[in-house]
Amino acid sequence: MIKRALISVSDKRGIVDFAKELSLMGIEILSTGGTAKSLRDAGIAVTEVSDYTGFPEMLDGRLKTLHPKIHGGLLARRSNAKDMDDIQRHDIKPIDMVVVNLYPFEETISKPGVTFEDAIENIDIGGPTMLRAASKNFQDVIVVVDPDDYPKIIDEIKSSNGDISRETRLNLAKKVFAHTARYDALIADYLTSIIEKEPYFPEYLTIPLKRVSVLRYGENPQQKAAIYRERNSGISLPDAKVLQGKEMSFNNYLDAHSALMLIVEFDKKACAIIKHNNPCGVAIGNTAREAYKKAEKADPISAFGGVVAFNTEVDADAAKEMVELFLEVVIAPSFTSDALEIFSKKPNIRLLELSNMLEKKKAASWDMKRIAGGMLVQDWDYSDEDIMKMKAVTKRQPTEDELEALSFAWKVCKHVKSNAIVYAFKDRTVGIGIGQTKRVYSAKIGAMNATEPIKGSVVASDGFFPFRDGIDVLHEMGVTAVVQPGGSVKDNEVIQAADEYGMAMIITGTRHFRH
Amino acid sequence: MIKRALISVSDKRGIVDFAKELSLMGIEILSTGGTAKSLRDAGIAVTEVSDYTGFPEMLDGRLKTLHPKIHGGLLARRSNAKDMDDIQRHDIKPIDMVVVNLYPFEETISKPGVTFEDAIENIDIGGPTMLRAASKNFQDVIVVVDPDDYPKIIDEIKSSNGDISRETRLNLAKKVFAHTARYDALIADYLTSIIEKEPYFPEYLTIPLKRVSVLRYGENPQQKAAIYRERNSGISLPDAKVLQGKEMSFNNYLDAHSALMLIVEFDKKACAIIKHNNPCGVAIGNTAREAYKKAEKADPISAFGGVVAFNTEVDADAAKEMVELFLEVVIAPSFTSDALEIFSKKPNIRLLELSNMLEKKKAASWDMKRIAGGMLVQDWDYSDEDIMKMKAVTKRQPTEDELEALSFAWKVCKHVKSNAIVYAFKDRTVGIGIGQTKRVYSAKIGAMNATEPIKGSVVASDGFFPFRDGIDVLHEMGVTAVVQPGGSVKDNEVIQAADEYGMAMIITGTRHFRH
Repeated sequence: MIKRALISVSDKRGIVDFAKELSLMGIEILSTGGTAKSLRDAGIAVTEVSDYTGFPEMLDGRLKTLHPKIHGGLLARRSNAKDMDDIQRHDIKPIDMVVVNLYPFEETISKPGVTFEDAIENIDIGGPTMLRAASKNFQDVIVVVDPDDYPKIIDEIKSSNGDISRETRLNLAKKVFAHTARYDALIADYLTSIIEKEPYFPEYLTIPLKRVSVLRYGENPQQKAAIYRERNSGISLPDAKVLQGKEMSFNNYLDAHSALMLIVEFDKKACAIIKHNNPCGVAIGNTAREAYKKAEKADPISAFGGVVAFNTEVDADAAKEMVELFLEVVIAPSFTSDALEIFSKKPNIRLLELSNMLEKKKAASWDMKRIAGGMLVQDWDYSDEDIMKMKAVTKRQPTEDELEALSFAWKVCKHVKSNAIVYAFKDRTVGIGIGQTKRVYSAKIGAMNATEPIKGSVVASDGFFPFRDGIDVLHEMGVTAVVQPGGSVKDNEVIQAADEYGMAMIITGTRHFRH
Repeated sequence: MIKRALISVSDKRGIVDFAKELSLMGIEILSTGGTAKSLRDAGIAVTEVSDYTGFPEMLDGRLKTLHPKIHGGLLARRSNAKDMDDIQRHDIKPIDMVVVNLYPFEETISKPGVTFEDAIENIDIGGPTMLRAASKNFQDVIVVVDPDDYPKIIDEIKSSNGDISRETRLNLAKKVFAHTARYDALIADYLTSIIEKEPYFPEYLTIPLKRVSVLRYGENPQQKAAIYRERNSGISLPDAKVLQGKEMSFNNYLDAHSALMLIVEFDKKACAIIKHNNPCGVAIGNTAREAYKKAEKADPISAFGGVVAFNTEVDADAAKEMVELFLEVVIAPSFTSDALEIFSKKPNIRLLELSNMLEKKKAASWDMKRIAGGMLVQDWDYSDEDIMKMKAVTKRQPTEDELEALSFAWKVCKHVKSNAIVYAFKDRTVGIGIGQTKRVYSAKIGAMNATEPIKGSVVASDGFFPFRDGIDVLHEMGVTAVVQPGGSVKDNEVIQAADEYGMAMIITGTRHFRH
């Protein structure tokens, strides 16, 4: 039976109604400061914790509940005679329910211009202690951290003769530890961000994620899935506003992520189309429409059912073109109202607006790759080589047009799965060779994918050419210039091959594997 | 100046030496139970917390330090006159240092046969509270959670006139919250595992990772990287013992993960070779050597510099073959001592022994895909269709050999990036078409990759055929049977094409995209 509840909440949502119900059941209520006042104002009888402990609140509220009369009442095992003797001897009363939520640390640090002092003051000490003590003793103490649980708890008490099942108690305790774990992980993150400009790889990395939504399924229908948000200040796909369309799927998100990472690389108006997590067409243009048309034309079969990203507003002209094709997702910094009007006739297309994509550009924290039993954690690959300023290692230097095309192809190449070979002109991809275990095959496949003559195009390669055979293939295809990281033991042979063919070749010294 | 330290540690490593140094500096030591005894036994003067508070330890030690005389001493701001008045009035002494580590919850739940009661009793309540209170007040209180920090702290006190810099204090506080976050995340995980057999997607998912090592770099040299371990009970790559070789790289781990996930699918002795995170050759054989030879022969160019996995012991015969080729990593459940002897002549090859790979087979928890600003979380794809028991939808049923080959190809196909097309005989892959944005191209590329005649082989496709063109290509290549998920609006057209060619086709109803 529940005789006594301690209520001390920062988020006061629903607390008066809940306390009223408890009070009506004859449960004695202990409370502190602002919570006590709210309850009394609503006509609920409460005992101040300080009256019960005989110890005043002090240190501007830093010290309220850290007292043995509280924690003895939470931690004593009711079925343990010695525990019950102990508390009786010290005039400690059992507390059967704890209703506590914490100082809003996350909200506080999310405020623009928050001071360090404000953040520190919003680290709750007494609250987590009560929650954790009650949870440890969940068999005897009901612990409620989430205001959304109030109605369920009242219902269960009413329908179960004034008590709550062990299962519910355990579930509530579990919820507490999930809550305090996240709370402290956010504090650790915050302090790290204060201390270090580029924090690297702490011994304990505890990643605090918050569910955005449960998805219909994962990569495949047999896999259950959900999307989680990380607290961060970088470009963030979960922040995108879904303006219309069917529910986003797991693969939609995965492709939208790749599309986003690629499209923010460009300064000129650009469009990228992603399929199976690889770009199939990327282009720049004077308008969104022009960029889209060129990207789509680069590989119309793959573009079917693709995810399209823009780094510029989507207007009616662009929208008119897109509704002609079956597309899964369009993501852009904004859509004109005319564009939205046009898309509304194809209500299945998901439209994602991410208004800050151009300001933010970079994702916060780290990139991660899941492995069985752990996680590989690495910097995002934001290395950004200025190809326009580079000199060729070959006898021939690239022309201005070739240089622009190389620069364009290099940006795309970074976002194609390795081994990647991208054929391009200065405004569009011509053929993309994806994910082969042999580089020369990526060269062949890129050419296979071309839908226009590739003669006169340039090529970017994400890794070095191990042999000259790749260059031989590119020459056969009519490629005039190449950009690649270099670093092969056969670089000389490769450069010599380029020289033989009169190709211009830039070596960046930086590779961009992506797996 | 540090006048008073509270020491209460579960892990007593180094504590006596540390406390002695503090004591020699004239610092008064408060302590509890077992810690106090250890210090006194070493001749260090200590005051029992219970003597100081005037309140006995009770509830079998559940209640020791949760007292305002402790927490007032931790939380009072020394620069705040009112705070200092408050504590003086209540005879509370400032505590300037807290040395606390927690009940070993993680170690406890890792013990085989641990009871629920034992786990719960090892949830520390007082310890985290002192750590967190001291950390909140880090400007005035030094907080030490890690025994490894003792020497550094003594050094800094000695070299800085008896104090410690704000920077060190803040770093120590940050460390505390990283520690308590992980501690509570592990408790939440444990309770979840008790409550739910298959826990799904809590609102707050806080992933507790522990660093295994910092890596030389990430996917590319410009990316810093580290590998982290998750606490779990499934197959775990970080558990693999590195028997010899150069330091594992980020890409080695990534490929080893893919190799591992693939190789445990097979019951017969099998070998898989991974390159750029895709299999380039997979085979089964009567011996490890035979399986390796066939896998390598399937694509010797790609196998160069590959990661090789076995689901069976690697013996001298197999080792002799492998040292002939440049390989990055070999992973297996075990290596014979003769095999190790042979590999020792190629000391750069990394040998990973994961002895429990065959018992465990499945990774715990969830698969995850990183997106900017969050994480996609899903079940691992452990759906395992028994192709041997399936009927073809075509007029012709597969022969026994074809059925075995289809079953083999289907297992491989699941681990090839989408769109995936795998050509195989019943004991080996013949050609693998990887990661294309058009399925028909994966079909063409798989054939291009073949190093032996593919006539008479079978094909597995990870997704459905959108059109009959894929089947036309396969027929041209001489393929006699196909396994694929089905589900296209044009399934009938596709089946009809197969029938025209006399192909046998199995439709699984399950797809295996992998991106």
